[in-house]
Amino acid sequence: MAILSRMANQSIELSDVFYALGDPTRCSIVGALGGGPASVSELAAPFDMALPSFMKHLAVLERSGVIRSHKAGRVRTCELQPKTLSKAERWIAEQRATWEARTDRMVDFVEKLHQEELSRDQCDPDKP
Amino acid sequence: MAILSRMANQSIELSDVFYALGDPTRCSIVGALGGGPASVSELAAPFDMALPSFMKHLAVLERSGVIRSHKAGRVRTCELQPKTLSKAERWIAEQRATWEARTDRMVDFVEKLHQEELSRDQCDPDKP
Repeated sequence: MAILSRMANQSIELSDVFYALGDPTRCSIVGALGGGPASVSELAAPFDMALPSFMKHLAVLERSGVIRSHKAGRVRTCELQPKTLSKAERWIAEQRATWEARTDRMVDFVEKLHQEELSRDQCDPDKP
Repeated sequence: MAILSRMANQSIELSDVFYALGDPTRCSIVGALGGGPASVSELAAPFDMALPSFMKHLAVLERSGVIRSHKAGRVRTCELQPKTLSKAERWIAEQRATWEARTDRMVDFVEKLHQEELSRDQCDPDKP
């Protein structure tokens, strides 16, 4: 039960991370922060958007743990939190790996069936 | 210009994928489909949710390319599309790698400064 509840919690946290990335503006902010920490005004400059709306996007990213920010004087600086990104990356990789392992097992099974069929045909005295 | 527009398109498609994953129910559906294709009723069973609401979640996942479905008779079967998951995984890995490469360069720079300071101190005749 504890494990299930942990899994559910993890799933909720991860869905927050994906939700934060699930918007073109927020994806672009993450891309920009890959180059290093940046102030809110530097990050906002390329976007044709009112500052309060832009700040809401930053708040979604910060709440999910994708970025963090700190204020020095009047300047708020944001930076990526690579650990959160790692967690999301690992989750996707795990789902893909489970799927691929299953597909590999299916291919092995079909190949085995095919080989058995071939060897049966070769031993069949009625076969031309 | 063409490159920029391609990047923007890619960013929009990716944000659709993250948006699709940005919900605990849809995260759980992806987890369940890691084990192999499943019918809509099999997938819906663990959720205390009306079928039309559940179908909306499946539609979001299908529109983003995270899953695909086909109907045979009266049964609709869903399966993961690992290529879409790979794309999302690669994007996250790239953002993380850019960030980490920058951090590594910064660490090198600070270490070099520190070494230069140390050797200056050692050569300083006024130093005790």
